[in-house]
Amino acid sequence: MERRRVGILGATGMVGQRFIQLLSNHPWFEIAWLAASDRSAGKTYAEACRWKLDTPLPKRIAAMTLQPNVPEGSAIELPKIIFAALDADIARELEPKFAAAGCAVISNSSAFRMTADVPLVVPEVNADHLALLETQSWRKEHGGRGGYIVTNPNCSAIGLVLALKPLEERFGIESLFVSTMQAVSGAGYPGVASLDILGNVVPFIKNEEEKLQEEVGKLLGRLSGAKVEILDAKVSAHCNRVAVEDGHTECVSIKLKKKATREEILAAWSEFLPLEGQHLPTAPEQPVEYDEGVDRPQPRLDRMRGHGMAATVGRLRECTLLDWKFVVLSHNTIRGAAGAAVLNAEVLALLGKLDKLGVPLEKFSARAVAVTA
Amino acid sequence: MERRRVGILGATGMVGQRFIQLLSNHPWFEIAWLAASDRSAGKTYAEACRWKLDTPLPKRIAAMTLQPNVPEGSAIELPKIIFAALDADIARELEPKFAAAGCAVISNSSAFRMTADVPLVVPEVNADHLALLETQSWRKEHGGRGGYIVTNPNCSAIGLVLALKPLEERFGIESLFVSTMQAVSGAGYPGVASLDILGNVVPFIKNEEEKLQEEVGKLLGRLSGAKVEILDAKVSAHCNRVAVEDGHTECVSIKLKKKATREEILAAWSEFLPLEGQHLPTAPEQPVEYDEGVDRPQPRLDRMRGHGMAATVGRLRECTLLDWKFVVLSHNTIRGAAGAAVLNAEVLALLGKLDKLGVPLEKFSARAVAVTA
Amino acid sequence: MERRRVGILGATGMVGQRFIQLLSNHPWFEIAWLAASDRSAGKTYAEACRWKLDTPLPKRIAAMTLQPNVPEGSAIELPKIIFAALDADIARELEPKFAAAGCAVISNSSAFRMTADVPLVVPEVNADHLALLETQSWRKEHGGRGGYIVTNPNCSAIGLVLALKPLEERFGIESLFVSTMQAVSGAGYPGVASLDILGNVVPFIKNEEEKLQEEVGKLLGRLSGAKVEILDAKVSAHCNRVAVEDGHTECVSIKLKKKATREEILAAWSEFLPLEGQHLPTAPEQPVEYDEGVDRPQPRLDRMRGHGMAATVGRLRECTLLDWKFVVLSHNTIRGAAGAAVLNAEVLALLGKLDKLGVPLEKFSARAVAVTA
Amino acid sequence: MERRRVGILGATGMVGQRFIQLLSNHPWFEIAWLAASDRSAGKTYAEACRWKLDTPLPKRIAAMTLQPNVPEGSAIELPKIIFAALDADIARELEPKFAAAGCAVISNSSAFRMTADVPLVVPEVNADHLALLETQSWRKEHGGRGGYIVTNPNCSAIGLVLALKPLEERFGIESLFVSTMQAVSGAGYPGVASLDILGNVVPFIKNEEEKLQEEVGKLLGRLSGAKVEILDAKVSAHCNRVAVEDGHTECVSIKLKKKATREEILAAWSEFLPLEGQHLPTAPEQPVEYDEGVDRPQPRLDRMRGHGMAATVGRLRECTLLDWKFVVLSHNTIRGAAGAAVLNAEVLALLGKLDKLGVPLEKFSARAVAVTA
Repeated sequence: MERRRVGILGATGMVGQRFIQLLSNHPWFEIAWLAASDRSAGKTYAEACRWKLDTPLPKRIAAMTLQPNVPEGSAIELPKIIFAALDADIARELEPKFAAAGCAVISNSSAFRMTADVPLVVPEVNADHLALLETQSWRKEHGGRGGYIVTNPNCSAIGLVLALKPLEERFGIESLFVSTMQAVSGAGYPGVASLDILGNVVPFIKNEEEKLQEEVGKLLGRLSGAKVEILDAKVSAHCNRVAVEDGHTECVSIKLKKKATREEILAAWSEFLPLEGQHLPTAPEQPVEYDEGVDRPQPRLDRMRGHGMAATVGRLRECTLLDWKFVVLSHNTIRGAAGAAVLNAEVLALLGKLDKLGVPLEKFSARAVAVTA
Repeated sequence: MERRRVGILGATGMVGQRFIQLLSNHPWFEIAWLAASDRSAGKTYAEACRWKLDTPLPKRIAAMTLQPNVPEGSAIELPKIIFAALDADIARELEPKFAAAGCAVISNSSAFRMTADVPLVVPEVNADHLALLETQSWRKEHGGRGGYIVTNPNCSAIGLVLALKPLEERFGIESLFVSTMQAVSGAGYPGVASLDILGNVVPFIKNEEEKLQEEVGKLLGRLSGAKVEILDAKVSAHCNRVAVEDGHTECVSIKLKKKATREEILAAWSEFLPLEGQHLPTAPEQPVEYDEGVDRPQPRLDRMRGHGMAATVGRLRECTLLDWKFVVLSHNTIRGAAGAAVLNAEVLALLGKLDKLGVPLEKFSARAVAVTA
Repeated sequence: MERRRVGILGATGMVGQRFIQLLSNHPWFEIAWLAASDRSAGKTYAEACRWKLDTPLPKRIAAMTLQPNVPEGSAIELPKIIFAALDADIARELEPKFAAAGCAVISNSSAFRMTADVPLVVPEVNADHLALLETQSWRKEHGGRGGYIVTNPNCSAIGLVLALKPLEERFGIESLFVSTMQAVSGAGYPGVASLDILGNVVPFIKNEEEKLQEEVGKLLGRLSGAKVEILDAKVSAHCNRVAVEDGHTECVSIKLKKKATREEILAAWSEFLPLEGQHLPTAPEQPVEYDEGVDRPQPRLDRMRGHGMAATVGRLRECTLLDWKFVVLSHNTIRGAAGAAVLNAEVLALLGKLDKLGVPLEKFSARAVAVTA
Repeated sequence: MERRRVGILGATGMVGQRFIQLLSNHPWFEIAWLAASDRSAGKTYAEACRWKLDTPLPKRIAAMTLQPNVPEGSAIELPKIIFAALDADIARELEPKFAAAGCAVISNSSAFRMTADVPLVVPEVNADHLALLETQSWRKEHGGRGGYIVTNPNCSAIGLVLALKPLEERFGIESLFVSTMQAVSGAGYPGVASLDILGNVVPFIKNEEEKLQEEVGKLLGRLSGAKVEILDAKVSAHCNRVAVEDGHTECVSIKLKKKATREEILAAWSEFLPLEGQHLPTAPEQPVEYDEGVDRPQPRLDRMRGHGMAATVGRLRECTLLDWKFVVLSHNTIRGAAGAAVLNAEVLALLGKLDKLGVPLEKFSARAVAVTA
């Protein structure tokens, strides 16, 4: 099978580097186009990037020339599939341009996550929300050329909703607390100053508690016609930065609508296999793994489960205030960012939504959204 | 004024070292006797101890000979005031022996904290609970010779109750959620292995959640006759270890019995000065300091406030689930351990309860417990 | 090809865990026998071990029962190939027993490294030293049953000699200064206390400077008849522990016997391919990789090069005092311990020295030692 | 005694904050003027600064208004004593302006350290070099109004020269290696990114090895007439950044001109008391403290000796290559920066060189430089 050409916007940042790491040997996609800031255009990737991952920068990528970060003016043909790892302000300006140019923009930015007609998707949780694409404004407004924007959630929300979805399905969620201990890579590079985090905790991450609280509601919301009904559950988040390189750890207390036993909850997690049999390259075999160890999950030991795409849950115990307590962990720049977007792209491919991009809308005939969580 | 002779049990451990640091220039107390494990008896303190603090080990202390860790057989006269920094199992065996021998045992151990007739005290919070001493069993059973045991709470409970007490007094507490990020020094030395905590979080500390939940109830409980009525509030704790040397950070969500505005809460904290005017050497001027910074408190920056004896509170904001959220921080081996015990001893001195130790009970006439929080 | 059965002594420690990680999918070897301390015998591996690696403990291994750590009394047949990850004191007692029982003991311990008839080997550097096995005392004394002990160097010596060997070959080494910054995993588990290393440096590792200094001399020594002539070069080592999980970084200044240009040195490293074409599964393609980055090598970014088996060198520059300065880095528990031993075993297999083990000596006919660095 | 008014240039950076911490209760100096970047002028100090120290920002300072960072245009009278904590590029431009305006500029910058007529001084080491001020160009060129620039060395050089000076005096130094492990605070704020240093070592600090090598030569050089003869000793430096907040640790191997025994070296250090009896407020009682512990000095335990102004030496042992090896440690932002400058100012005050500033040169009659190391 021929691999589809893809591009990466914001290719030199921490999430951009993860995109390159995850896509450089991808069986379905081939990196054909890279862009970073204006300043970088014309440089090779190796010149413009301080590579910070512990696998080598692939030589082919190192030699690629960075293109202007707009749909026009590329020295090489613009791919129709664009992974975007941009800061929110820049995403707000650039992503619509690429969508208008007929591209499928698979975005990791927060800019449009809460926009009504933009799907905010974790494939195991709410792939059905991709139906929003049928009526998304960018596709209509710009000559209906098949472009659109799809987003994945904030890094602190993804692991959490993976753990919550099986509980919501079986028991319903009434309310929850979540207190996070987040890795520094979530802030990008240079991001958190070492003087701020060595031997320290910073109990504040700008806008993070708000994002976490609202994104959970949309992700667990129900698609109703052409819109998502936000889940009516109270979510209270406390977000903290800790001296961890990768991996967000979250302490959760939860109240369910219907009482559940420990065994029922463990079964809900272990039987949560919504993508089973779909053969998506990036999907973990078991999206939610429960670890029986008394002191697990831990970021250094568990973040790479499922090649960094699984959420690990542990310490399920009764809560004196709500019903149950547990700890959930996931890798923030793989599952929580680049890997999430790649998995979104794989689902889009499966659904036929990466075909007929850039052609007039009437010719776009995606298969019905068949994958549901 | 002559200084009172005091002894330290468990003098070589992390908390024992803090006792030495805090007591070696204390205006009221003079270190006259040191003991550690059986194995150490007969060695000098310098030989037996790996000093881990960043102030020098005082030369006089370095040269002192460690005594057997029992009331008998000392080469020097046993002081009547004993600070105890022992593991719970050892404390359970040794502390009653010293109490029976007529000593005031000022204990940092968890062994007897929840025993009905043992005061669990933070002076600013519940100094009145010291009245339990009048009828404490050790004083009666062993010939009524004036000995007793007084305890301070777990390191994770002290900072929290300092922040809670002003709220309980003015508004009443219905329930609360607390998620901690605790320093490694809380586990003693060698304690937490570096391989477990570098670049990591361990979301488990043995028995810590249980201790934190139950101690808060006793500390905020009301003295009624000769017993403490445990506060009837639901407390749900998540305890985590993080890569911080000193200082426990805690995220709190709280529901009050009576609604309170932000201003009322801030006023409750700033006006909380229960020991004002008592001139206790170790008492901080302002036990609860509120910091307006968006990202405070932080362990590295705030743990030494009030010479390590103040609790710093920050980030007061509304909670979507209960009423209010905030962060509280305190130094776990000063305010949370050795300093707490020293302050307990100072209050005992103020109340006359360090006089007449070791003499038959009928001659013991403590002043009424006048200091109330 | 059928895989050879192997056993692991000291299987639950940090290096033992690395053995399991590296051997559990090894094409030539199959883990058939595990032992740890006396106390662990009879338990399953999962019960006895706190698994600290970030890849999952293989299920087959988890279920294996730990055997007594002596050659006799195993419930299963003792393999003839034993990887040993023991503390020196225990190794000194146990390893000869296994050798005497006819086993090839591939040891990571320091116990016999400097023993005259025990090969201390890094395959790329001095595989020819394996000829010492022909006359090793254990083979002779115990009925000549083919058993022997082979050792690999200290974790801080391996990366260094990989960088030094190409220079010794081409230019000769007169003297060198090396200052190490070593990872905590080198001290095993629990090993270094977090209170000792968080935000800290410990400029001392027991016996490490001595080991590093003497092992370099033997590794770079010349085999002459049945003995190794220690290299006559002055080595001065400073060893330090830093807050790094894995990867030893070493600053080197070196004086060569024959002057060399920068280009000649870089060529010596890049052309150093002594195992090329031997197809050893664990051998890195390029044993010494030079990185042109101004601030490389770094443990977090470079330790996994060559699957953790390559040494990375950087910052070659002139020395004001000797001739040249550079920095070398290698993974201390892979290249510096378990991986080193596995590579030794692969070379032994290649040389036929894993055949005919446990049979009388006269039947043992190893091929001549053909692999030379 | 009335305190002298002083100003601080670069007051909001890491070293600027240390100046404020060290000067806000200084018996001889009073902070009267603060400046930071152009952008900050007009703001209060509290508005412009992210205070990163663990002692509270003094309220008086918090409320002070930042002035323009030039000698003119201040809303308040410009003090004649200016402490400067500027980046080298900015220092090169601004410091001469203040000197020309008649100020004594006590600089921590590298801009003019190696300028022939600028004293590079550590008071215990080479206070006599202050005689260079008599003929310094700024005093002559700008109307001879008494202004000048005095510098202290790089943070990595100060601790080292304190340990070296007693050896140079008694035995002479022929050559030395030094390998540093430097704290992140040395890079200022935000400085080193947490992603670069957590669980990592960076074996490179821009220009640091060069500075360290050349500054040692000037500091230990001999004043001869109106110039300093650089010490003719070979110094080879390896500089590394490690995950330590404060405190630079340095491994040294040294060759002396005259052989010395261990006892002679220890005596040289313990008897090194060049400022004894001068009663300088910031001078440590014992500038070089030797610690007998096998694993000392360590940054977390020893950096605050002498209130952060002492250098701690340990692990004196023979070197196989040169003569002796040892480890030296000092606090990089106190002894290595702000404290060094404050001590320089105290010596200048003692010598009368802070009198008659800003007046024509002929009226400036400093006492002869009497303090010599």
